[in-house]
Amino acid sequence: MSQIRSISIVGTGNVAFHLGNALMNAGYPIADLYGRDLTKVSELSETWNCSIAEKLSDLSGDLVIICVNDSSIQQISLEIPSTKAVVHTSGAISMEVLNSHDQFGVFYPLQTISKNRKLDFEEIPILLESNDMDLLNQLDRIAGSLSKKSVIVSGEERKSIHLAAVFVNNFVNHLVLKSKNIMDERNLDWNLLLPLLDETVNKIKELGPLEAQTGPARRNDEKTINEHLVLLSGTDKELYRLLTESIKKTYLE
Amino acid sequence: MSQIRSISIVGTGNVAFHLGNALMNAGYPIADLYGRDLTKVSELSETWNCSIAEKLSDLSGDLVIICVNDSSIQQISLEIPSTKAVVHTSGAISMEVLNSHDQFGVFYPLQTISKNRKLDFEEIPILLESNDMDLLNQLDRIAGSLSKKSVIVSGEERKSIHLAAVFVNNFVNHLVLKSKNIMDERNLDWNLLLPLLDETVNKIKELGPLEAQTGPARRNDEKTINEHLVLLSGTDKELYRLLTESIKKTYLE
Repeated sequence: MSQIRSISIVGTGNVAFHLGNALMNAGYPIADLYGRDLTKVSELSETWNCSIAEKLSDLSGDLVIICVNDSSIQQISLEIPSTKAVVHTSGAISMEVLNSHDQFGVFYPLQTISKNRKLDFEEIPILLESNDMDLLNQLDRIAGSLSKKSVIVSGEERKSIHLAAVFVNNFVNHLVLKSKNIMDERNLDWNLLLPLLDETVNKIKELGPLEAQTGPARRNDEKTINEHLVLLSGTDKELYRLLTESIKKTYLE
Repeated sequence: MSQIRSISIVGTGNVAFHLGNALMNAGYPIADLYGRDLTKVSELSETWNCSIAEKLSDLSGDLVIICVNDSSIQQISLEIPSTKAVVHTSGAISMEVLNSHDQFGVFYPLQTISKNRKLDFEEIPILLESNDMDLLNQLDRIAGSLSKKSVIVSGEERKSIHLAAVFVNNFVNHLVLKSKNIMDERNLDWNLLLPLLDETVNKIKELGPLEAQTGPARRNDEKTINEHLVLLSGTDKELYRLLTESIKKTYLE
């Protein structure tokens, strides 16, 4: 394939928005955009100064980046001419869903992406995969102009990294919500805990999480553990119990 | 009681070390120090240029701060003359364990404290409690010279805050360890996840954890959830399942 100079984007969600902006800033013009939400399509096409594709078969970029829900990727790819190089941006979906195309791959930014947050793409690792060495090299070049870190990984590896990311982001976020609920229910100021959250992360980065562990479970302090369990009920109590057991196991064996 | 000008410290662990340093820097001389680990006692007494107390009854500071394991606080307090004002530094222990004294209280820095990490006490909220209004005012003044934030809370409130802190620090740290194990087991570079960890915290601080939640559980993506469960076993699998259920419940009800 000839060198990728222009890019088509499918989708108008958070990934499309941030990735399109980053590509524009890195000097890759967005050729055109396809999406179902016509208000958003119109907004983004103005921001990117690009055409609006009425059909998926009209897309004209050298590469089509599909930024849609995991469950829609395959169906959408089937409507794009098979001679067009296509990639998706999902951590969880096999690249093989795109295999009706000659050249296909994955361009997965390893980050939690929300529209209303400014994102520094430079700091976001981009995980790459392709069935075609030429496309892979070109994806690597594009990723390198957006981010300081791009890595070629297999589909299995990407799935494992996505799983690890669920622990680091989704589950951590949920535990912090639990702490906020505990404070809110008692009219205590949740902001008191934010310096501790910062230090938790700083300590993890300096010492690693194995060494950074402290607390009642780590020191096998049954008295405090039992006093905490009394304050909890339902799923929160189950979570406390399971996490405490898991910490104990980690250090006692 | 007259104004507290000098402080005695009991204990030579991480809290004693950091709190003693912060007090010295804030202009409160350490009068003397008692501890069982004579090497550490000798080191700290040099750092603080203070005497070493051979017995707990010898301590001469206007206030004695007991920085020892939760389980030793009461026993130690009984050996300190009851006319001496005493406080402990624990999040989990009732101040009433000190009630053999005329004036007693709690001086609890809400932070995870390890010896080898430089700590900025200014950013650490200090939770205060006392049986005596005069002592409470003096603790508040001391806390105010160490930290930007001190709060007077009841014992019940402190226990709840300590519980919330276990979620924010101990449990978050453990989940990050799980993510590291997932990466390490597959020879994948765990550092790839650190930008995500940073963004997780930044997003929590900007949007709050209720709004910041993303991921398969949040969007009820059973296919990805099941694919992740296949990759896990034992306690990790149980943790994934329980956290996923808990996230679903939060947003579906």
